Amino acid sequence: MNQDTSFWGWGWAHRFPDDEARLQLGQLVQALTGFAPRGLLSPPTLAQVELTAPRGPRPPFDFIQDDAEARTRHTYGKSYPDQLRGFAGDYAAAPDRVARPNNEAEIERLLEFASASQLAIVPFGGGTSVTGGIECRGEGHAGVISLDLGHLDQVLALDPIARLARIQAGAKGPALEAQLGAQGYTLRHFPQSFEHSTLGGWVATRAGGHFATVYTHIDDLVASTRMITPQGAWATRPLPASGAGPAPDRLVLGSEGTLGVITEATVRIRPRPTQRAGATLLFDRFEAGVEAARALAQSGLHPSNCRLLDPREALLFGVNAENKAVLIVGFEAAQHPVEVDLARALELLRDFGGELRPAAVDDGAGRWKQAFFDAPYLQSTLISLGLLADTFETCCTWSTFPTLHAALIKGVREALKRTTGGAFMSCRFTHVYPDGPAPYYTFVGPAPAGGELAVWQEVKHTACEILAQHGATITHHHAVGRTHRPWYCKEVPELFTSALWEVKRHLDPAGIMNPGVLWEKGP
Amino acid sequence: MNQDTSFWGWGWAHRFPDDEARLQLGQLVQALTGFAPRGLLSPPTLAQVELTAPRGPRPPFDFIQDDAEARTRHTYGKSYPDQLRGFAGDYAAAPDRVARPNNEAEIERLLEFASASQLAIVPFGGGTSVTGGIECRGEGHAGVISLDLGHLDQVLALDPIARLARIQAGAKGPALEAQLGAQGYTLRHFPQSFEHSTLGGWVATRAGGHFATVYTHIDDLVASTRMITPQGAWATRPLPASGAGPAPDRLVLGSEGTLGVITEATVRIRPRPTQRAGATLLFDRFEAGVEAARALAQSGLHPSNCRLLDPREALLFGVNAENKAVLIVGFEAAQHPVEVDLARALELLRDFGGELRPAAVDDGAGRWKQAFFDAPYLQSTLISLGLLADTFETCCTWSTFPTLHAALIKGVREALKRTTGGAFMSCRFTHVYPDGPAPYYTFVGPAPAGGELAVWQEVKHTACEILAQHGATITHHHAVGRTHRPWYCKEVPELFTSALWEVKRHLDPAGIMNPGVLWEKGP
Repeated sequence: MNQDTSFWGWGWAHRFPDDEARLQLGQLVQALTGFAPRGLLSPPTLAQVELTAPRGPRPPFDFIQDDAEARTRHTYGKSYPDQLRGFAGDYAAAPDRVARPNNEAEIERLLEFASASQLAIVPFGGGTSVTGGIECRGEGHAGVISLDLGHLDQVLALDPIARLARIQAGAKGPALEAQLGAQGYTLRHFPQSFEHSTLGGWVATRAGGHFATVYTHIDDLVASTRMITPQGAWATRPLPASGAGPAPDRLVLGSEGTLGVITEATVRIRPRPTQRAGATLLFDRFEAGVEAARALAQSGLHPSNCRLLDPREALLFGVNAENKAVLIVGFEAAQHPVEVDLARALELLRDFGGELRPAAVDDGAGRWKQAFFDAPYLQSTLISLGLLADTFETCCTWSTFPTLHAALIKGVREALKRTTGGAFMSCRFTHVYPDGPAPYYTFVGPAPAGGELAVWQEVKHTACEILAQHGATITHHHAVGRTHRPWYCKEVPELFTSALWEVKRHLDPAGIMNPGVLWEKGP
Repeated sequence: MNQDTSFWGWGWAHRFPDDEARLQLGQLVQALTGFAPRGLLSPPTLAQVELTAPRGPRPPFDFIQDDAEARTRHTYGKSYPDQLRGFAGDYAAAPDRVARPNNEAEIERLLEFASASQLAIVPFGGGTSVTGGIECRGEGHAGVISLDLGHLDQVLALDPIARLARIQAGAKGPALEAQLGAQGYTLRHFPQSFEHSTLGGWVATRAGGHFATVYTHIDDLVASTRMITPQGAWATRPLPASGAGPAPDRLVLGSEGTLGVITEATVRIRPRPTQRAGATLLFDRFEAGVEAARALAQSGLHPSNCRLLDPREALLFGVNAENKAVLIVGFEAAQHPVEVDLARALELLRDFGGELRPAAVDDGAGRWKQAFFDAPYLQSTLISLGLLADTFETCCTWSTFPTLHAALIKGVREALKRTTGGAFMSCRFTHVYPDGPAPYYTFVGPAPAGGELAVWQEVKHTACEILAQHGATITHHHAVGRTHRPWYCKEVPELFTSALWEVKRHLDPAGIMNPGVLWEKGP
């Protein structure tokens, strides 16, 4: 556990801005949105946090911790409700203990003890869940143990011929990239949480990565998995492809800690790209940008980057201030030049009224990349100014998008206005597929003191209902957790959730693995 | 049921060659392999087939048939043992009845009756299984019904914006392409069985299609599925992507009729390609061709075609007679020219000693395409000459391939020589991935009269054991069926097969859905 990470907010503690910077941000937000921050609220200190005594039997292993700091740091993910409670010093949801095993054998012993003692096990990953995926409530259990695989962070093997790397699940983005990079390779999977989340967490939540097209989800990069379940180990062979029965890895991908503990994955790596070409285009109307993005997604050109920002998103992230939509497009390759691909893309995009910005004038991609990784810090800072600030995301077909988008803008803004009196809302595409985009929404409003959680719940509920009504998915890459559970259960066939529950009972008969996540309840 | 289809052999009945053509082929095989056909054996006639009376209660529906022709035509797939028994007029494995429902409601009623009456239901697809996937043995059932969705063959909806088409599962390749083509679109999924297999069969068996890279398996083309299980309907939403829990469609894909009847899929379509560029290269050594194919697969150029044929395969299919390996590479797109992609690929391939053949001299791609779709007819004809002739396929990593290939060539040839006295074996890559190829093997030998099945079993067993020993998959696109069942159960985690069995029991409590396929047995 790095002491420099914020225990309540996003990322590195030293990145939390000082009072002057917070004041400036408050003024900027007011200029942008028309509503004022509540003021400079004080962040909590670790010493202020009070925890109740750990419940349940203590597993007799030397990799178990129950000191206050370890428990506090493993209490929450980074959702708005998580940060809100953390900022308020409310750590009632703290795990009773934290387990930091050193190998699979220790994980097996832990699951055995927990199964026998009715202790819930909550795999922590990197602690960046924004959907209540790691909250240690337990569901009638004797106690809850947060499981942190931080000690399992090694690249165990690298096959340069097949371009595969076997990596332990606790490895975070920078650690695994450093180990791969030493041999000239990269996984090139860059979710927004990249610095703080783990390979195991990516697999468990089907994370969405860097590439805008083709191989985007971690699902596509996984060649095999290892998982320790309460009933024993589960391991698949690394295979480029197979047509043998339903794919076992696809049951691990998205299991969110409910079936077992993912301990390793063999992933598809590639040489670092040496060839890059990109451009930023402006569109007078967001709708024209949408059409352009669709044309590019359906062109077969497979750009590595294709992000569309609506005018408010472009403004919020400092990419463009002319009230225009921005499309950032990029190509990359390890060997062949990609200028010709970019030229083809630009030819296509100009047909939709895209106006090319010279890179020297407006480095949209560079600014955007920085803003992309900084965005979660912005949310923590806005919370410290008493503002409601959150995001949600989805994926739908191109034919659904215009209606869905209009309904979301209308419905969520109305909910924000009704509950907070003010409303800011922006949209971008994080990924584009031949059959549809993955739109991502940011919303900000003045949160009423003490009523923040209720307001958030109403706004979030409104958004989720609109997604469900339009047949859009409840999550493209934020996972289900506890937050999206009711809509997930409506999204997939009832026979599927009930069948999965049979799988869960088979692998985890004592029901200790991350209870309360994914499913509403067992039948 | 088209009367022009062969009831015992591959494809169209009128394509079975006359005696003179068979004699010529026999001479060609002898020249190529050094061993002689047994002679011109006589194909069976439908009138010669004798069936026992149907067992079990007759479902009281007007879409049930029990005439001899319907039962005979639904007895076998197209594996070597299937054709061997069919050619010998042995139809002991005939289903008791054939169901040809007109809609989902009729399927529901059928499953209800079958569940109550312990009748096994075997989804027939297009009847092209080569792994015993549709054999109507039953496993202690009162009777067996072959389920033919031939009446469900319509494209129900086409969304040109999202490029999605909702298609009934009984639609065969030509029928669905004709309906899509009328609106300017194509699915471009061309398994070797394309003319005779169905969309539902492709989904049930995770078929491998036309494209050599990127979106190759039907898995990648499926946006949603509908399945009628004995416990009710299962339907997913068409979504470009989702990160919500384990993917429900991935449980349907590869289920081989054991969980329910796939009735529809919404699939990703595209405009017909207008831009094409391709080339044929020769390599003195197969190993150099392998290295070249790997470089291309790992280049990020995403060719639509990349087939490597070893010298014997090139000879067998009339693509090249100079004892050289042949690499056929192609690019296609709907909009942008692809010559530049081909030029990049050729630059890469020449580094490995690839010698370019001008298209005018040697149209490798054209000859290969014709030979590809003709190959199954060749097998039927060889069977009628008393020859053992079959194929098997797999997928492995690039680092595994050389060792695996050497072991297969040695082991399978030895088994052929030991059992038949003669041996011909060739190899091609059907697909290439960044992490490995999908090699496909053809073997021919002189089959001993009356001992064909025993010989085939020994050779097949040898091949499967070698695949398993090297960590290669038991099937890249031929599916599991009954034939590959023992090795499938060893390939995937034991906890996975036992968990899937719980899913099976949940969806199909009476155990009527294609019993004996995929799993060895329930726990």
